[in-house]
Amino acid sequence: RIDGDRLWRTLMDLATIGATPKGGLCRLALTDLDKEGRDLFVRWCEEAGCTVTVDEVGNIFARRPGRNPDRPAVCMGSHLDTQPTGGRFDGIYGVLAGLEVIRSFNDQGIETDAPIDLIVWTNEEGARFSPPMLGSGVAMGVFTLDHVLDIRDTDGVRLGDELARIGYKGEVPVTGHAMGAYFEAHIEQGPVLEAEDVEIGVVTGAQGQRWYEATVTGRESHAGPTPMRLRRDALAGAAVMMEAVEAIALEVGGDACSTIGRVQVHPDSRNVIPGRVWFTIDLRNPDPDALARMDAMLRERLAAIADKRDLTLELTDFWAFPTTPFAPELVGHVRRSVERRGLSHRDIVSGAGHDAVYVARKVPTAMIFIPCENGLSHNEAENIKPEHAASGCAVLADAVLATAG
Amino acid sequence: RIDGDRLWRTLMDLATIGATPKGGLCRLALTDLDKEGRDLFVRWCEEAGCTVTVDEVGNIFARRPGRNPDRPAVCMGSHLDTQPTGGRFDGIYGVLAGLEVIRSFNDQGIETDAPIDLIVWTNEEGARFSPPMLGSGVAMGVFTLDHVLDIRDTDGVRLGDELARIGYKGEVPVTGHAMGAYFEAHIEQGPVLEAEDVEIGVVTGAQGQRWYEATVTGRESHAGPTPMRLRRDALAGAAVMMEAVEAIALEVGGDACSTIGRVQVHPDSRNVIPGRVWFTIDLRNPDPDALARMDAMLRERLAAIADKRDLTLELTDFWAFPTTPFAPELVGHVRRSVERRGLSHRDIVSGAGHDAVYVARKVPTAMIFIPCENGLSHNEAENIKPEHAASGCAVLADAVLATAG
Ligand SMILES: NC(=O)NCCC(=O)O
Ligand SMILES: NC(=O)NCCC(=O)O
Repeated sequence: RIDGDRLWRTLMDLATIGATPKGGLCRLALTDLDKEGRDLFVRWCEEAGCTVTVDEVGNIFARRPGRNPDRPAVCMGSHLDTQPTGGRFDGIYGVLAGLEVIRSFNDQGIETDAPIDLIVWTNEEGARFSPPMLGSGVAMGVFTLDHVLDIRDTDGVRLGDELARIGYKGEVPVTGHAMGAYFEAHIEQGPVLEAEDVEIGVVTGAQGQRWYEATVTGRESHAGPTPMRLRRDALAGAAVMMEAVEAIALEVGGDACSTIGRVQVHPDSRNVIPGRVWFTIDLRNPDPDALARMDAMLRERLAAIADKRDLTLELTDFWAFPTTPFAPELVGHVRRSVERRGLSHRDIVSGAGHDAVYVARKVPTAMIFIPCENGLSHNEAENIKPEHAASGCAVLADAVLATAG
Repeated sequence: RIDGDRLWRTLMDLATIGATPKGGLCRLALTDLDKEGRDLFVRWCEEAGCTVTVDEVGNIFARRPGRNPDRPAVCMGSHLDTQPTGGRFDGIYGVLAGLEVIRSFNDQGIETDAPIDLIVWTNEEGARFSPPMLGSGVAMGVFTLDHVLDIRDTDGVRLGDELARIGYKGEVPVTGHAMGAYFEAHIEQGPVLEAEDVEIGVVTGAQGQRWYEATVTGRESHAGPTPMRLRRDALAGAAVMMEAVEAIALEVGGDACSTIGRVQVHPDSRNVIPGRVWFTIDLRNPDPDALARMDAMLRERLAAIADKRDLTLELTDFWAFPTTPFAPELVGHVRRSVERRGLSHRDIVSGAGHDAVYVARKVPTAMIFIPCENGLSHNEAENIKPEHAASGCAVLADAVLATAG
């Protein structure tokens, strides 16, 4: 039994930090607001009797001891950072559902054999510092600590400096934390559960992603006296490439997705034909072969467009992870919980990357999804139903209990 | 007779202020570098015996007196501000060719009946503060002084504040300056003269322009779990619109041009489907009917794309001027000079806007073009031949002399 009202109040309390006029959150990683959110979370955990430690990349671990201190911890967690125009639940729900599990175990005097760790991972969104999932990535040995501390935001500010500035550069070694299992509750961030009127998504894994950066170079010239046929317009070429990127996902079909999220035009003057355009590309597919096909289509089509227009294309791999299955045993704990509780449910593959994806490389992992309104996420209007929040939290509690003994 | 070597040295001297590594200039309007360039120009004019005054919008007037102080001045001029990645000659050539005319008249003891004014117009490029041609625009009553002083750059800095800061907020009333005629020498900024191996372009007028701002609004959502068919991707729609803008000029053909120079994507995060895209559009045509047709095509096609993709389009008129003929009598002075000097020449319509376009609304006006290398302008590689610079300057001197008596 968990306290759904308390969970909701806690969510709303944290949603006051970085609130936007449109009802969302802007609490970018390692800003003053992120510090404020972290501080509040740490206070709540300490009030719940947990011991809080911070590792070298700012990941926060709140421990509820078990009977057997030698067993690796059964872990829950997610992230507290948001997109620039993000919602109140993405990541935050998973963290605070974990806190509610601990609070309700306390209320009911439940002891577990293994210790329970509630984890906040640093910079999951990849919005301020890119790529995403940096805290979990370092912890799981995907990135080196030095590499990640040296990543800069668009203003050139170093991640490591910001970590120190907000007081979350911890001393605990970032790798080697003993995790016996990891559960992450999260909003679906897509429309499937809502459309099928299903309360819980039993997440069997996450689809693969490939991120790129494209730089198209042409020749700057005057927007007036330069005849169309003599132009080498980097932006006109980039626009056709952007259309091609969209077409790739449409042609491949199924669950294929393609997105261009960022664009920079140089020199960015109204009457100058752009000489250079930079943009990002995000390709996704749960089917590894289809994702490889999308990658090949991307390279071929963008190169052909550049060629035809006498433009230079530099297409670099920025980040990627393969389709990642979760641990059947842990997924089984989630499934048994929803069945026992009589919650409507379906298996689902995560469309987004999550810290769970990196954790799954080293630790048995599972995720629990709840529906979100209109399938909207990475949007200030992101919303969930309190009863779904409570159901997901109850399933998380069941799964943790089943694993921690 | 003018001194081509001195003109070239003067051009190279001014090109040291704001020089870029690629051999161009970045001397945006009303920056410290613009002040430095203006100060050097003022010193040169005073050394040449001119009286220098500055008007309320920062336009600089260097006067060489005539025998008859009651006659309105015969004027020469252009601008000293550049694009962010501009060249060494755009605008600057016209100003320094005018200075060389004054210097050589001094050397040869030439007196004119009318006074001669050499003018530097403020913020011609429209790069830092947009639209272009603001100094000449206020002087000719196209814009009010208050409106222009209140225009802001992309950092929100006010034009009027920058003018005061660099010490070029003058006291002379900006309208009502007595101009009897205006000649502006300029590089062609296009490929025509070079392609035909012609030394001088006799400019009969300037083609019309229409500038717009487009804002496309869709719905922000997550780049992963949002299926392609449920997206309202403002950038995917904007990319198709950008292609349509290019296609309009290609379809209308002839001298039609269309350019998108600036793009801003919101929220500009790699894994967020953009909810809003803003971009600028620049349409040009020497034929007024064809320009009107392009305008109609733009409105219709962009609206149809927005409609089809369930996006909202806001298309606003930002700036425009109609095709502008220059004064036949003054154009005749230019033509007679090139003929007498045996320079190869052709009539040409300016593809760019120039201060001359606004001046022509109130004052008899003509322009003189010289070729530029590869037709390149608004590019750091912009270049001209010293002998062309000298020829254009000599023609300017002839035309001024023929007009000033
Ligand atoms: N949940 C989430 O937004 N994660 C960031 C990585 C991704 O874009 O999938
Ligand atoms: N010469 C020049 O670049 N003028 C600015 C206005 C235009 O873009 O035509």
